[in-house]
Amino acid sequence: MNKLTDIITDPKRIIAKNAIPPSHLTDGLKLKYGYADILVYPKTTAEVAAIVKYANTNNLNITTRGAGTNLVGSTIPNGGIILDLSLMNHIVELDKQTFTVTVQSGILLQDLQQFVEKHDLFYPPDPGAKNATIGGNISTNAGGMRAVKYGVTRDYVQAIEVVMANGSVLNIGSKNVKDNTGLALKHLFIGSEGTLGIITQCTLKLIAKPKVSQTFIVGFNTIEQAISSITTVLHTLTPTALEFVERKVAQWGERYSGFKFPLPNSQAYLIIMLDGSDLQTIEQLRKLLLTNLGDCDYFVAEDNNQTNQIWTIRGSLVRAVEAITEQDPIDIVVPINRISDFINFTKQLETQTHMRMLAFGHAGDGNIHLCILRDNRDDKQWQSDLQNVHQALYQKCLELGGLPSAEHGIGTAKVSYYNAAIPEANRQLMRTIKQQFDPKNLLNNQVYMTVV
Amino acid sequence: MNKLTDIITDPKRIIAKNAIPPSHLTDGLKLKYGYADILVYPKTTAEVAAIVKYANTNNLNITTRGAGTNLVGSTIPNGGIILDLSLMNHIVELDKQTFTVTVQSGILLQDLQQFVEKHDLFYPPDPGAKNATIGGNISTNAGGMRAVKYGVTRDYVQAIEVVMANGSVLNIGSKNVKDNTGLALKHLFIGSEGTLGIITQCTLKLIAKPKVSQTFIVGFNTIEQAISSITTVLHTLTPTALEFVERKVAQWGERYSGFKFPLPNSQAYLIIMLDGSDLQTIEQLRKLLLTNLGDCDYFVAEDNNQTNQIWTIRGSLVRAVEAITEQDPIDIVVPINRISDFINFTKQLETQTHMRMLAFGHAGDGNIHLCILRDNRDDKQWQSDLQNVHQALYQKCLELGGLPSAEHGIGTAKVSYYNAAIPEANRQLMRTIKQQFDPKNLLNNQVYMTVV
Repeated sequence: MNKLTDIITDPKRIIAKNAIPPSHLTDGLKLKYGYADILVYPKTTAEVAAIVKYANTNNLNITTRGAGTNLVGSTIPNGGIILDLSLMNHIVELDKQTFTVTVQSGILLQDLQQFVEKHDLFYPPDPGAKNATIGGNISTNAGGMRAVKYGVTRDYVQAIEVVMANGSVLNIGSKNVKDNTGLALKHLFIGSEGTLGIITQCTLKLIAKPKVSQTFIVGFNTIEQAISSITTVLHTLTPTALEFVERKVAQWGERYSGFKFPLPNSQAYLIIMLDGSDLQTIEQLRKLLLTNLGDCDYFVAEDNNQTNQIWTIRGSLVRAVEAITEQDPIDIVVPINRISDFINFTKQLETQTHMRMLAFGHAGDGNIHLCILRDNRDDKQWQSDLQNVHQALYQKCLELGGLPSAEHGIGTAKVSYYNAAIPEANRQLMRTIKQQFDPKNLLNNQVYMTVV
Repeated sequence: MNKLTDIITDPKRIIAKNAIPPSHLTDGLKLKYGYADILVYPKTTAEVAAIVKYANTNNLNITTRGAGTNLVGSTIPNGGIILDLSLMNHIVELDKQTFTVTVQSGILLQDLQQFVEKHDLFYPPDPGAKNATIGGNISTNAGGMRAVKYGVTRDYVQAIEVVMANGSVLNIGSKNVKDNTGLALKHLFIGSEGTLGIITQCTLKLIAKPKVSQTFIVGFNTIEQAISSITTVLHTLTPTALEFVERKVAQWGERYSGFKFPLPNSQAYLIIMLDGSDLQTIEQLRKLLLTNLGDCDYFVAEDNNQTNQIWTIRGSLVRAVEAITEQDPIDIVVPINRISDFINFTKQLETQTHMRMLAFGHAGDGNIHLCILRDNRDDKQWQSDLQNVHQALYQKCLELGGLPSAEHGIGTAKVSYYNAAIPEANRQLMRTIKQQFDPKNLLNNQVYMTVV
């Protein structure tokens, strides 16, 4: 096998350097661009294996991408081959008896969710980008809003098929619910950002679709009150989602979506979703909230329309910001009792630096998505201000026992913060594993692990 | 540092070869015995690190043990040092705000459970051996009856402190709920049966203690009916525990415990526990069962006394068998829709071979604990019959897409079945990791991974 055109014979699926669309040279932010020699669209695992073998023989970098929605530079290539898995989007098997679905890794999250829900089953992980691929979700161990109750992508991956750097194909895991038969290799690939192998197929765990859900909002007079209520809510209810939004942040969503957010006199909100058997009557909710949370107001969505409006506003926040100005997305996680410390720190920093920052996020698991707004800064000022703010934020995050990435990954964007957060001995162990799995360092070698 | 007696100066904590009690040379079955040069009881991570450095310098095997309850030979030493962590049993920190507890790994499961429940918190994993250590639980990714709803030990380990084979100490993980900051090293150590490092401390995730629970039994006329109802139950309810027991097996428990098991006219049972918001009224249960399961009988425990009797009978099955005859414990897992195939196969095998087998177990997750009874066979006959039955059982397990170990691990006892179940390429990758983590192959080198 001498040429890639012998492997991918369909000319529509092999794109020469000069014809590669710019969207394939960047990530979801579309701010930085890389370069590549060729773009290929395999359709089968056998094709992926042959391409990887070819790359290995010819010492070519491989940058694997799904839908390219990542926010940390992981899909910005640095020469070699772009391996686009978006055509590997088939459902291989729905097995209702074992509550599993097997899919090629290029299927979009939204397509998978719709498919299984039609069969009265449910794939709980629900990261914001519904147009991301499942392969991308696995490679960043994506989380999302329902993680508070249901956990993250890692918790739903039963088996993976992986093409290793030498082109061999490994099958890891099974449809068995319990497994203590050997080392948990599967978990090493999940969240590895494409550095250890290329996931071509996976078997995902499903659950019975919750028959009902309920959304309500608790409004507070101060941000502190809202945030200090988070652990109480976690002790009192079993929320599917537990999101924190400030009034002024909700207003961005109102302007963008055209919908009104309830309880306009409150300063900060917790948006809470319950589902299945965790639903409460209005009377139960009233008692629980008033007994446990003190002085607060609440609004219970009465129908699908109200529910959708609330979640549309919450879901539109990043786009609402991006419609006005460039923004830098932060994906910090802190232990849940330090959320208020972190958010208070962003307030101080905002005052000190005059950078606008919108904090919102997955309050139930300490994952704060902070948008830092560029506003009218020129390139130089923006980069310099952003770097200063980053350093202060990530430093504070570490002081609070937090981590630089909850679900976006490290990519190229957060390497220095990753280096500061993870002890050198741990990083050395990761590099050792990378070296054994990919001795020529060809797979996604632009991202964090290879940078010392 | 030249001598172990310089590290452990307290003579009560360092036991010479000839004084090592036999209980430290075996596992939970007490059928096979190994040998060792010395037994040490460290009290601190620093002592463990110093001992491991000493062993590394002097090329001595280390067999780490907690309470020695394992059933697969993992704690049977083959020379060198026995590292007994049972004195490292302290609670380091209960952090109610982040729902975590940090403990030394030698603490017993039952002590941990009692401690956190006193604080209205709950550690969901509940393996049968309450007198096992948490370190042992982590090293086998122990499961237990509540895994159906709450998952296994892996799902509750937030952070670990590990002494590596060279004596260095690594801290992996954090109190953060979400984490996509680097490779999931933590998951590699969980379930690795002490082969990659020695876990000395861990931070475990807790949940709010469910305020109420409910136990009921569904009785069926045939085993097939009981087993074919399992997936229906999983679609209809959210069981905390879902156990399968045959009438004739329950009778073993009745005789041993002195309690009566309800619904004596049924041939097979599902024992179901619900908790928290998943509880049902008797009327709801009646409707659900009659609508979904067809011809069955049911019994709802009305008070703690009835509940305890049911779970005492279920919990006493292994001991009930062992009071009468030696038994060999099987820990096979199959996909949940193949449980009935597997149990039917054991019936055929029982008829063919005249070996008595008692099948029961965690129906909700496909994990079947089969006791094979020795009865009055002499040593030679027992070994030969057992080997034949093993081969047939594990072969069937693989045909059904199952695995040889759900939660006991591979140890020394299941190496050949592990080799048959896991592809050579996967095993090679595991050996590669072992080789990098423990180049001299000193840590628990008697167990599976080092045997090709």
